[in-house]
Amino acid sequence: MMKKVGIVMGSASDLPIVKKAIDMLVSLSIPYEVHVYSAHRTPAEAAAFAKNAKANGFGVLIAAAGMAAHLAGAVAAQTTLPVIGIPCKSNTLDGIDALLSTVQMPTGIPVATVAIDGAGNAALLSAEILALGDEELARRLEEKREADARAVLAKDAEIAKEFN
Amino acid sequence: MMKKVGIVMGSASDLPIVKKAIDMLVSLSIPYEVHVYSAHRTPAEAAAFAKNAKANGFGVLIAAAGMAAHLAGAVAAQTTLPVIGIPCKSNTLDGIDALLSTVQMPTGIPVATVAIDGAGNAALLSAEILALGDEELARRLEEKREADARAVLAKDAEIAKEFN
Amino acid sequence: MMKKVGIVMGSASDLPIVKKAIDMLVSLSIPYEVHVYSAHRTPAEAAAFAKNAKANGFGVLIAAAGMAAHLAGAVAAQTTLPVIGIPCKSNTLDGIDALLSTVQMPTGIPVATVAIDGAGNAALLSAEILALGDEELARRLEEKREADARAVLAKDAEIAKEFN
Amino acid sequence: MMKKVGIVMGSASDLPIVKKAIDMLVSLSIPYEVHVYSAHRTPAEAAAFAKNAKANGFGVLIAAAGMAAHLAGAVAAQTTLPVIGIPCKSNTLDGIDALLSTVQMPTGIPVATVAIDGAGNAALLSAEILALGDEELARRLEEKREADARAVLAKDAEIAKEFN
Amino acid sequence: MMKKVGIVMGSASDLPIVKKAIDMLVSLSIPYEVHVYSAHRTPAEAAAFAKNAKANGFGVLIAAAGMAAHLAGAVAAQTTLPVIGIPCKSNTLDGIDALLSTVQMPTGIPVATVAIDGAGNAALLSAEILALGDEELARRLEEKREADARAVLAKDAEIAKEFN
Amino acid sequence: MMKKVGIVMGSASDLPIVKKAIDMLVSLSIPYEVHVYSAHRTPAEAAAFAKNAKANGFGVLIAAAGMAAHLAGAVAAQTTLPVIGIPCKSNTLDGIDALLSTVQMPTGIPVATVAIDGAGNAALLSAEILALGDEELARRLEEKREADARAVLAKDAEIAKEFN
Amino acid sequence: MMKKVGIVMGSASDLPIVKKAIDMLVSLSIPYEVHVYSAHRTPAEAAAFAKNAKANGFGVLIAAAGMAAHLAGAVAAQTTLPVIGIPCKSNTLDGIDALLSTVQMPTGIPVATVAIDGAGNAALLSAEILALGDEELARRLEEKREADARAVLAKDAEIAKEFN
Amino acid sequence: MMKKVGIVMGSASDLPIVKKAIDMLVSLSIPYEVHVYSAHRTPAEAAAFAKNAKANGFGVLIAAAGMAAHLAGAVAAQTTLPVIGIPCKSNTLDGIDALLSTVQMPTGIPVATVAIDGAGNAALLSAEILALGDEELARRLEEKREADARAVLAKDAEIAKEFN
Repeated sequence: MMKKVGIVMGSASDLPIVKKAIDMLVSLSIPYEVHVYSAHRTPAEAAAFAKNAKANGFGVLIAAAGMAAHLAGAVAAQTTLPVIGIPCKSNTLDGIDALLSTVQMPTGIPVATVAIDGAGNAALLSAEILALGDEELARRLEEKREADARAVLAKDAEIAKEFN
Repeated sequence: MMKKVGIVMGSASDLPIVKKAIDMLVSLSIPYEVHVYSAHRTPAEAAAFAKNAKANGFGVLIAAAGMAAHLAGAVAAQTTLPVIGIPCKSNTLDGIDALLSTVQMPTGIPVATVAIDGAGNAALLSAEILALGDEELARRLEEKREADARAVLAKDAEIAKEFN
Repeated sequence: MMKKVGIVMGSASDLPIVKKAIDMLVSLSIPYEVHVYSAHRTPAEAAAFAKNAKANGFGVLIAAAGMAAHLAGAVAAQTTLPVIGIPCKSNTLDGIDALLSTVQMPTGIPVATVAIDGAGNAALLSAEILALGDEELARRLEEKREADARAVLAKDAEIAKEFN
Repeated sequence: MMKKVGIVMGSASDLPIVKKAIDMLVSLSIPYEVHVYSAHRTPAEAAAFAKNAKANGFGVLIAAAGMAAHLAGAVAAQTTLPVIGIPCKSNTLDGIDALLSTVQMPTGIPVATVAIDGAGNAALLSAEILALGDEELARRLEEKREADARAVLAKDAEIAKEFN
Repeated sequence: MMKKVGIVMGSASDLPIVKKAIDMLVSLSIPYEVHVYSAHRTPAEAAAFAKNAKANGFGVLIAAAGMAAHLAGAVAAQTTLPVIGIPCKSNTLDGIDALLSTVQMPTGIPVATVAIDGAGNAALLSAEILALGDEELARRLEEKREADARAVLAKDAEIAKEFN
Repeated sequence: MMKKVGIVMGSASDLPIVKKAIDMLVSLSIPYEVHVYSAHRTPAEAAAFAKNAKANGFGVLIAAAGMAAHLAGAVAAQTTLPVIGIPCKSNTLDGIDALLSTVQMPTGIPVATVAIDGAGNAALLSAEILALGDEELARRLEEKREADARAVLAKDAEIAKEFN
Repeated sequence: MMKKVGIVMGSASDLPIVKKAIDMLVSLSIPYEVHVYSAHRTPAEAAAFAKNAKANGFGVLIAAAGMAAHLAGAVAAQTTLPVIGIPCKSNTLDGIDALLSTVQMPTGIPVATVAIDGAGNAALLSAEILALGDEELARRLEEKREADARAVLAKDAEIAKEFN
Repeated sequence: MMKKVGIVMGSASDLPIVKKAIDMLVSLSIPYEVHVYSAHRTPAEAAAFAKNAKANGFGVLIAAAGMAAHLAGAVAAQTTLPVIGIPCKSNTLDGIDALLSTVQMPTGIPVATVAIDGAGNAALLSAEILALGDEELARRLEEKREADARAVLAKDAEIAKEFN
């Protein structure tokens, strides 16, 4: 059975961003579980979730948080499963605070960081990781790549028709 | 008996910065305890230290860390004692990563952040906090302020002699 | 009797931010006083307020200002009470000017800086400081922490129901 | 047999950084292959390496580059294997150019970005990914975590002896 | 016959920006061709377009992209025609990510970078380049310069009338 | 008699920068006075100096400070004489903190800000201001401009000889 | 007769910002003249205006421009009158480009830079400069300072009534 | 006869950077002329050089300057020849001031900006532009590309030998 992707967000207000990751996982038929655990308000629950993740059937964890975004690091500190961090843009600083708080991890505890608000890519990255052990999923990823390329080329044809 | 100041650094490499805080506390006769606990490599120890800090006689905690500096936030998440964060400059980005990771805390879990590498002020701030319940310490702080002012004015006299 | 928290804002236009601090103090039953004193337009009044703050029954001062936010530093220069700075976002630069102007204080005069527009945490930090000498307030802070955690977990349950 | 980690650097001048990744992989007994392919000077070779990586027995690719660091993205564009990007600091801008060029990938082509010059974590992240299908490697990672934690606590004991 | 300007955008969503370049080229009677090729989603098509550009009658290429904007560099890697990069502003970071990703090219593969969203100037720069071999186009550019100057002076007269 | 230029630095460690302003004033035969007054450590002295500056024969004030550089603003708050601010680079952040703290003044209290560490230009600006009422000084400034231009052209001749 | 303030803006689109300077000058009864001259589109006119400014009765020049804001520097290069620069915020980068382009002048050609979009302070600074030779204007500036202070204190009274 | 490349630097101190452009032009047998003209200290000479550049046989101009780097824009304002800007790193801000001052040009006056200190690429870009009308130069550029690629692959072979 395929391992699950665990998604944790630091605040329910991150859901609109996280939703893009969920939709991507659904489109790839990857099982997942979503949680709201704050590294600061519920540190014990966040730690417990991460610590037990492997035993509970998770293969990859995704953590989304804004501002001084410690969640991905806090999760990564409790597991040797791959942890993906989504830095979320908040009301100030355009997400650069969350990006630096997520990506600048010290040696020993890696966080695989994606773009600010880049939840879709977080899901795709988790899929690429799980696909190492799942040729069927690997095939779906290849198909998605090809579909994405075709969509670009369709746009190219459309714009070429209008302008060239 | 005066409450202690607990100083935690995320890595022993932060000691040269932290030393400035220690020296300041010593000069003010404030009891302290220093530890190396990493939010990421030893999260349980960092959390336990913070959780038991009040019971163990601490009044203020100071946390120093660089890069994605989560330590102050991780400590603050486990206690309602005032927590002071020192963002430490590392090899890249001149400390702005540590500053944003320390100061941009979400509502609910405050971290009193001082300047990048501002360990002296972290100690002074802890002293100001403890001085609320200790008139003798308050007096020492006033004296230090006056001494600092006299030192500036002595420099002024010296430079005035040279240039004016 | 509990010491008061003194809140100073540099301009009445900072009130919507400062209001979050006031509401937090009210919710914690902490006495406070609010003022508009500009470090630049009314430097004498700002200085006098800070200088007399201790004698007037204040235990902690909070200063909120934007742009070249000198207010917290100007207040801190006149008192050895703990001073908390709230950097306020203005029309340009997303608050980074106010953050650096508030946090990068030279050794000798600390300002406990919170996040950009982080007025709620400024109030909580002042509460944590006052709670060192007030076990009843400490208890209220612990309760608030627990309520915050429960709120996160309630959101988690809600989202889990929707997605898991 | 364990899949290999493929490391590509954009310039031989990145070798001192990349060396830290190599050493980490060696310490974890993970097979690897190192190459110098520039996204700009040898785009065909970089693309071919990535395109054939899966068939050639690679499980994860690591790309290290500085400045307008396109290498990780160029590699990711040719494979659905997980690709890890190491932004390298160069003579100007302290690595922020490489960080943004590596992490801000558009939806569809994820790059798992680690800290500026964070080659050790790139290797550890690749190990965590490969360990999903290799319990023996997972065990080595757990052991390394424990060793890292013990090293922190040893430092703590040392510093405690000196200062407490 | 005049060489064509080839415009490539990384995503059809960049069209509103690119449209300013098209309009400028049209106003200068410069032949052009517009395409949507993504450096990441359709790397082969982007490379092929650039590789064959000279043979296909192009004299200058313009590439517009946002975020980790690799398109201009990817195009430049395949041709020795002059390549102009337009960094496009996206939802976060105000375009600084695209600017640095476009301009910070390593020695060997230059990209002539214009301002963030500066599509008009990209077109003008391509015109200046083509005008080196086309005196009639050079004359049109001179005329445009003079018309631009007259427009500024007309505004000056208008404002002088209102205020002076 | 010519009005004096008053130079205030926030710390004696700023003297190497301030020295460039002194040398420039000396070369232009402008009377000056130098002081060390900290906006934070000696706020009363800084304020008194500024408040009495006009009565004491000063025409322009220059304030040099680093980090959260409040000095120029604190001086400007006490006088309607023109105040020039020199943001000084310190150990972190390359002077951007001092620049923003100096230049981002709220409406009502202007500070004429020059480049980071731009003490020479601070002196020249004060000279330009004083020259409005002193034709002889205006002539010296014109001569300096011409000498500067000749120095550039001499370098041009030298380099032309070597390379052209 | 009082010298005039010359205001130059790089584009008529800067008028809404510049208008704040005009209003301030009007309120202080300072004669002025407004122009639209672009450092890039009408360099000859911008240079001629600056070169003849002193002879034409100007005492201070104000230049407002956005993006790569060269106008203040171009004006300053042609005159030894004091030149004040207003960096204007444009569509991207929140004005930091204009700020750095205006303030980071090389030694020899100073530009007195005010805050981003700080047109009111540019006018006040020009008034402070002209007031050195005009006691009546100096008095009006003092009165404005006092009125500004009273306005702050009135706000303080209002807010005190509501909250204290 | 081949058109010349005109190189202007704002200060003789930029020569170490500019030298890389000269060496590249020499290696490509492209005629050039080097000058030191400051946009601020010798604006007339800088303008005259640019205005007469076309008549004097120049085909492309390169301008190198640091800090508030106006030189490229000032040159571009006087000619419709393509102008390439090299932002030079100075003592503060790591070149970001020069980059923004060079690249953020308003519509109408393009500057083809290369990387901070990217003088080699400025020369290559000028070569690509001149090669549009010079097949022999185009061939030399192709050869250089191939040599660059071979150099990368040689490094790859060397490193492969050491590590693989």
